[in-house]
Amino acid sequence: MQMEEQECRSRFSAAPRGVLATCGVDRRPHLVPVTFAVAGDVVVTAVDHKPKTTTRLRRLRNIAENPSVAFLLDHYEQDWEHLWWVRVDAAATVVEDGPRWEEAVGWLVERYPQYRAQPPAGPVIRAEVTRWSGWSAS
Amino acid sequence: MQMEEQECRSRFSAAPRGVLATCGVDRRPHLVPVTFAVAGDVVVTAVDHKPKTTTRLRRLRNIAENPSVAFLLDHYEQDWEHLWWVRVDAAATVVEDGPRWEEAVGWLVERYPQYRAQPPAGPVIRAEVTRWSGWSAS
Repeated sequence: MQMEEQECRSRFSAAPRGVLATCGVDRRPHLVPVTFAVAGDVVVTAVDHKPKTTTRLRRLRNIAENPSVAFLLDHYEQDWEHLWWVRVDAAATVVEDGPRWEEAVGWLVERYPQYRAQPPAGPVIRAEVTRWSGWSAS
Repeated sequence: MQMEEQECRSRFSAAPRGVLATCGVDRRPHLVPVTFAVAGDVVVTAVDHKPKTTTRLRRLRNIAENPSVAFLLDHYEQDWEHLWWVRVDAAATVVEDGPRWEEAVGWLVERYPQYRAQPPAGPVIRAEVTRWSGWSAS
């Protein structure tokens, strides 16, 4: 069963982590789990809490080459009648500094107590959602 | 911390579901959760248990256009010291019938009791692993 957009937003926004997919010019899809925050049709995620290594990260290179990204949140259990997932298609940019960087870090710090001790210091990915979709088995 | 290949194989193979990423010529990454089975360096997944709708599925079209796929398995919890993930990069083909189709369906039925009542009837994705990688916070 298709899931209503409002339900997709609600389930995705409440999840503590999602999977981010990027795909650069080499056309090899790249996957990584991410923490994130949602505000309207914007999803932000900080690259790492180890800023030293961030600048070479493949997700950043991929987004520079191709802004199309996707996020997935899914629920699995043995009873397949309870499976569901939410997918977010978006156009992403890498934000290194400035008001949008501060805004994104603010959202993340507000959402994750873990970030309060050590706020994200590296680049932020800001993704503008183009489509919310979801499916539920029942 | 980088995870040893053997550990990646072991954790991925034991998981009941993973996330599959494909990316067609439109360069928009596509994500979907999948059940799967692993044999050596081969990962197979059946498209659906609703065969009627499978032939138009985007993951199949994407693989026909671009065989590069990735799978992700990750573990999240509030204590970020316990985060880990395993990523599988692979080259996939869509198998519609024949010995390789039968082999894949056999692996899946053996692995999932849920498939015994209703074995997968649609196309199978057969992915040859090119790289196992993983990361663990501690």
